[in-house]
Amino acid sequence: MAKREALPTREANFSSWYNTVVKGAGLADYGPARGTMVIRPYGYAIWENIVSEMDSRIKVAGVENAYFPLFIPMNLLEKETQHIEGFAPHLAVVTHGGGKELKEPLAVRPTSETIMYPFYKDWIHSWRDLPVKINQWNNVVRWELRTTLFLRTMEFLWQEGHTAHATHDESWSEVMRAIKMYEGVYRDYLAIPGYAGVKSASERFAGADDTATYETLMPDGKALQGCTAHDLGQNFSKAFGISFLDKSGQEEFAWQTSWGFTTRSIGALIMVHGDNKGLRLPPRIAPIQTVIVPVHAESEALSIQSKQIAEALSQQGVRVKIDDRDNKTAGTKYYEWELKGVPIRLELGERELSSGTVTVYRRDTDERQTMNIADVTEVLPQLLEDIQTNMLRQAEEFLASNTHDATDYDTFKSIMSSSRGMIRAFWCENAACEEVIKAETKASTRCLPFDSEEEQGECVKCGEKATHRWIFAQSY
Amino acid sequence: MAKREALPTREANFSSWYNTVVKGAGLADYGPARGTMVIRPYGYAIWENIVSEMDSRIKVAGVENAYFPLFIPMNLLEKETQHIEGFAPHLAVVTHGGGKELKEPLAVRPTSETIMYPFYKDWIHSWRDLPVKINQWNNVVRWELRTTLFLRTMEFLWQEGHTAHATHDESWSEVMRAIKMYEGVYRDYLAIPGYAGVKSASERFAGADDTATYETLMPDGKALQGCTAHDLGQNFSKAFGISFLDKSGQEEFAWQTSWGFTTRSIGALIMVHGDNKGLRLPPRIAPIQTVIVPVHAESEALSIQSKQIAEALSQQGVRVKIDDRDNKTAGTKYYEWELKGVPIRLELGERELSSGTVTVYRRDTDERQTMNIADVTEVLPQLLEDIQTNMLRQAEEFLASNTHDATDYDTFKSIMSSSRGMIRAFWCENAACEEVIKAETKASTRCLPFDSEEEQGECVKCGEKATHRWIFAQSY
Repeated sequence: MAKREALPTREANFSSWYNTVVKGAGLADYGPARGTMVIRPYGYAIWENIVSEMDSRIKVAGVENAYFPLFIPMNLLEKETQHIEGFAPHLAVVTHGGGKELKEPLAVRPTSETIMYPFYKDWIHSWRDLPVKINQWNNVVRWELRTTLFLRTMEFLWQEGHTAHATHDESWSEVMRAIKMYEGVYRDYLAIPGYAGVKSASERFAGADDTATYETLMPDGKALQGCTAHDLGQNFSKAFGISFLDKSGQEEFAWQTSWGFTTRSIGALIMVHGDNKGLRLPPRIAPIQTVIVPVHAESEALSIQSKQIAEALSQQGVRVKIDDRDNKTAGTKYYEWELKGVPIRLELGERELSSGTVTVYRRDTDERQTMNIADVTEVLPQLLEDIQTNMLRQAEEFLASNTHDATDYDTFKSIMSSSRGMIRAFWCENAACEEVIKAETKASTRCLPFDSEEEQGECVKCGEKATHRWIFAQSY
Repeated sequence: MAKREALPTREANFSSWYNTVVKGAGLADYGPARGTMVIRPYGYAIWENIVSEMDSRIKVAGVENAYFPLFIPMNLLEKETQHIEGFAPHLAVVTHGGGKELKEPLAVRPTSETIMYPFYKDWIHSWRDLPVKINQWNNVVRWELRTTLFLRTMEFLWQEGHTAHATHDESWSEVMRAIKMYEGVYRDYLAIPGYAGVKSASERFAGADDTATYETLMPDGKALQGCTAHDLGQNFSKAFGISFLDKSGQEEFAWQTSWGFTTRSIGALIMVHGDNKGLRLPPRIAPIQTVIVPVHAESEALSIQSKQIAEALSQQGVRVKIDDRDNKTAGTKYYEWELKGVPIRLELGERELSSGTVTVYRRDTDERQTMNIADVTEVLPQLLEDIQTNMLRQAEEFLASNTHDATDYDTFKSIMSSSRGMIRAFWCENAACEEVIKAETKASTRCLPFDSEEEQGECVKCGEKATHRWIFAQSY
């Protein structure tokens, strides 16, 4: 068990704990080019589960998948002024192809608005052509100076949805549908609660009129932006000439949205649920939901029993694996599967076998119980659901107890210089106050929650009139 | 029906027919950067079906999915001499990132051997670490001068499997498993027959000891290489230092394979099965297997009946769509769905409805039959299977009747200057003969089929001793 000491504690050094877990659990590693990431099979299996769940929700919403090119000619990227201003510092640029210097450099897509929308212009002429709702699963590249595995990498995987509508009501409904879909995947699958709301003007996507977000809280008290959905208004449709004849024969520019969910979500998953033994994976997202460890790898009786249990669980839809490696002790295996966050471990010993029982270990509560082998198949699917529910509840408690109301700026500053977390506070919605708060406390506006009600209040910084409480936090 | 004239015939101009169908059926279009491709929803849905089928076969074989970076530092790409020689002319190179010139340029992956294998070196130390079997679904870029949608594009989508083994027997078994898997998907899903075999030395992958291939025949008499699986021997393991201690404690270099299947397969699908009305999609791969057209879009009775049939078919697992657009005539709709290759169309008219019948149109045979509505749900799943079988049979007949034996060079030349097709002929396996044949007839060796038996023969070109009949063809 000497290896266990190698894992730093979350309390002593959270970022070192994070990096050690990501690598030690076999989730990911850095690639040879600075800031790039190798997603290893165990990490990729988590992403595949997310993709599968998200993709079916996207399809149910009537959005179709497609694929647009990786390379964007610079002249297209430059068409929407705010967009290029936002992305120019983060571009990777191809200048040579086939051994020759290119006449026009090609940007590697940082996001696909500007390569998709010229086609939208070609496809959209009449109200009958709307809505257009297209999604793609792909890789994008954003040059970043400081990178962390999953949380911020030069290349990452994501889906990007891009829709065009006849009215702003419709496009705004799509923004809300997307952000609710994301919230559903975060809560129901990743067991990660958060605040859904709109961004302030300074925190919007480059080229959007409004950005909706889902803001989650990490154990070190910093917020993580979980995903975004943008109300693009008519900014891109005007820049790219996407117009249509409406039912009355008037020419109108289309109303557009874009929305994305990335591999960053895996970073949130690791941080929110992990503990000092490593990962804790919510069952619905776990590549392996139950691992069976025959305590004596050489025992044929244990091997047969393990296979029978595995088969029965598999038929119940449980993702199960038998660890029958003969060159590792049971203790080493327990350590490894705890590090990898498998929700349930079945320990099968010869003495137990003779009494028809098995030890069931729950990773979320670190508890062991003895169970009749005959009951395992029936009990485990429900136990996995209980674990899922319990992990969401734990995360909800953490979020609730670390969301503070601050009515004066001293309290605000004091929270941000100690435990951090989310702060709910009145803000006058003046960018100047937002800037000062950020400079003095490192906390930025995270969002105005959708369920926030209009009130009479005073800005926590300047004391001027404020009508809503915003969520502030330091952030990743 | 005036539009129908717009589609060139296959006989008059095959490549014009191809491009018109690809664009007209909404499969794909060219991107703004030369040679790049936009895969539109209908084309991408075909790819998703291929991916789903292939991915489950890959997983059943114990291969795990992962994701490696898009950018490969040039020094890694240059490690295996033959590999870089083969790929250097086809690279896209990133020289600038984040607004600055990079110290070391980054190649956009043309294939991932050289970015994956440094990690294999880190992960593989003992025979216990083998085999390593990893696959990734991603995009790759190869700078090409002449491009055709799906068949040869600068960027394409594929899967690339990369395995490492303790012995050459094992790695060769993996090559054979991969190529048989591909053959299975081609035959059983895409209904495309072909010849599986090994490439000649001159046609191998850059860095491989042997390349297995599946060669298919297009209607214009040219062959298309459907996919490849490479026996990499120890070429890369020596270049990248991937060694392990075998069971006897000896240090050995790993034996490796790589294998890939691309969006090019969709090009084969279009060409092999299409006709002068457009696409004909085999039912197993068709995004829409049955389209229901209510002949009078405004009729409520037809609308209700259409929905009932659609619901019942959907419950049988049939992918079904109702075309109830009110601004297109039934004739226009028939034209569109024939162009898009939907295997079965149900035409539902008011007179038929009153007699409880529906017209069933089969796209593969261009035949109509009347059927009782009550029988549709039961009959259609089997009819779809019959269509699948019939389309494979048609393609098999075409391949068989266009595979010629040539025992003398005059016959060989005469075939290649007229109908083309595949030629089965003895070859001395001397590269010089292969070169002359290619220069004089444009036909290259496609493969030595796995089922080809050793015989006593004479090279079709030089008359020297030859032991096997190879497949020759002009190719895409």
